[in-house]
Amino acid sequence: MIDKLGVSHFTMDSDLVDFLGHITIPVAGAQFLHAAAVHAAARGFGYDDMLRQNVAWVLSRMAIEMKSYPELSEEITLYTWIEGAAGLFTQRCFELVSSKGESFCYARSIWAAIHMETRRPVPLDTESINAYRLDRPCPIEKPGKIPPVEHLVEGEPYRVRYSDLDINGHLNSIRYMEHLLDRFDIALFTQKKITRFEIAYMAEGKYGMELSIHSRESFPDAYNMAICHEGKAICRAAVAWR
Amino acid sequence: MIDKLGVSHFTMDSDLVDFLGHITIPVAGAQFLHAAAVHAAARGFGYDDMLRQNVAWVLSRMAIEMKSYPELSEEITLYTWIEGAAGLFTQRCFELVSSKGESFCYARSIWAAIHMETRRPVPLDTESINAYRLDRPCPIEKPGKIPPVEHLVEGEPYRVRYSDLDINGHLNSIRYMEHLLDRFDIALFTQKKITRFEIAYMAEGKYGMELSIHSRESFPDAYNMAICHEGKAICRAAVAWR
Repeated sequence: MIDKLGVSHFTMDSDLVDFLGHITIPVAGAQFLHAAAVHAAARGFGYDDMLRQNVAWVLSRMAIEMKSYPELSEEITLYTWIEGAAGLFTQRCFELVSSKGESFCYARSIWAAIHMETRRPVPLDTESINAYRLDRPCPIEKPGKIPPVEHLVEGEPYRVRYSDLDINGHLNSIRYMEHLLDRFDIALFTQKKITRFEIAYMAEGKYGMELSIHSRESFPDAYNMAICHEGKAICRAAVAWR
Repeated sequence: MIDKLGVSHFTMDSDLVDFLGHITIPVAGAQFLHAAAVHAAARGFGYDDMLRQNVAWVLSRMAIEMKSYPELSEEITLYTWIEGAAGLFTQRCFELVSSKGESFCYARSIWAAIHMETRRPVPLDTESINAYRLDRPCPIEKPGKIPPVEHLVEGEPYRVRYSDLDINGHLNSIRYMEHLLDRFDIALFTQKKITRFEIAYMAEGKYGMELSIHSRESFPDAYNMAICHEGKAICRAAVAWR
């Protein structure tokens, strides 16, 4: 049996950073999703394995905590492992470590498998997944319930475009993150840094769908957010700054 | 002296494709820009080398021709080389080859170096660059003059957002491509494929800038496009479908 822990590397190249030279939450998220896909495929429950059973992985929740932001050109090591699967869900963790050995980011994700036609969750083969379960610390809070804000604040309109779509023809998980972050004023990015970003995916965005993006500062530097279609949330998020 | 030809590899993973499973023009473009940065850095005229002289590379033009679209999970080899530098510009070529050995994409790019403060082009150290000049075929037409369309057709409004910005705080080169392609109706992507995409960058997009995106079918399946700010083009593009 191959290792439980997945290890991969990437370089903090200039095309992975924002205008401040910081890795962005969506870029970190994309690295996690990629590492998750590679890790799962190498262990017999990847995209192609699931497809043969007519099911697909869907990301249900993700929480990312940034302790610091690495320098440009740094070599980053990405660790991913399975915390456990039960019933309809499996939990996967991530850690990012700089070349100086500093652990600067942890993330947690919760996944379900849905049937390709019914789009309904199917029970997981928890035995196969839990064979790779690893008891490794991921010292951040699990993703939890995010209060609705869509009835409290006006949303900004957005219509789903070609570049937003993933291979399944749905608004891709990373684009949700981008559209949420684009609601913040640019000044906030220069004054503060995101310490925690949490997202709960609730429904699939489709091409041409008219969305509204809502954001409310619920506590100082803590925002609750939602993306809605026809008044109903398709995703909720919570963003903390410091 | 190291090789003139740059060789790198990537996998056609599901996060690099559109809803049809095809590599997108912006994703191919991003792979080219990344390979160009790595190739230049290894040969003494990368981003960091330029920065020490207070200049930065800017992409002036790019043309991408797709003969076919590779399958999902294919291992792709990317070749990049310098065709020659003269005066203010250097020309760099790219080729993509599938694991079956099929060359399915060529691209040409033209670059200038601008002074970080004046934002004006500076003469290139053509001798250093031409030491790596390689006589290798790139059998596609050079990027040329693209007729203006902004006075002929109404534009679609777009405002530059946080996620659009590159490390210099400008609308990033790849996002120009995305915003242009998003002007096409989704039906066109299912009926036809892009065979040639050409873009000319003319001015820098900045945060909050109000843009208008124009598209006109000048000949059957051939579109001329422009992105404008206050009626003045910041980029022009030509897209051919088949």
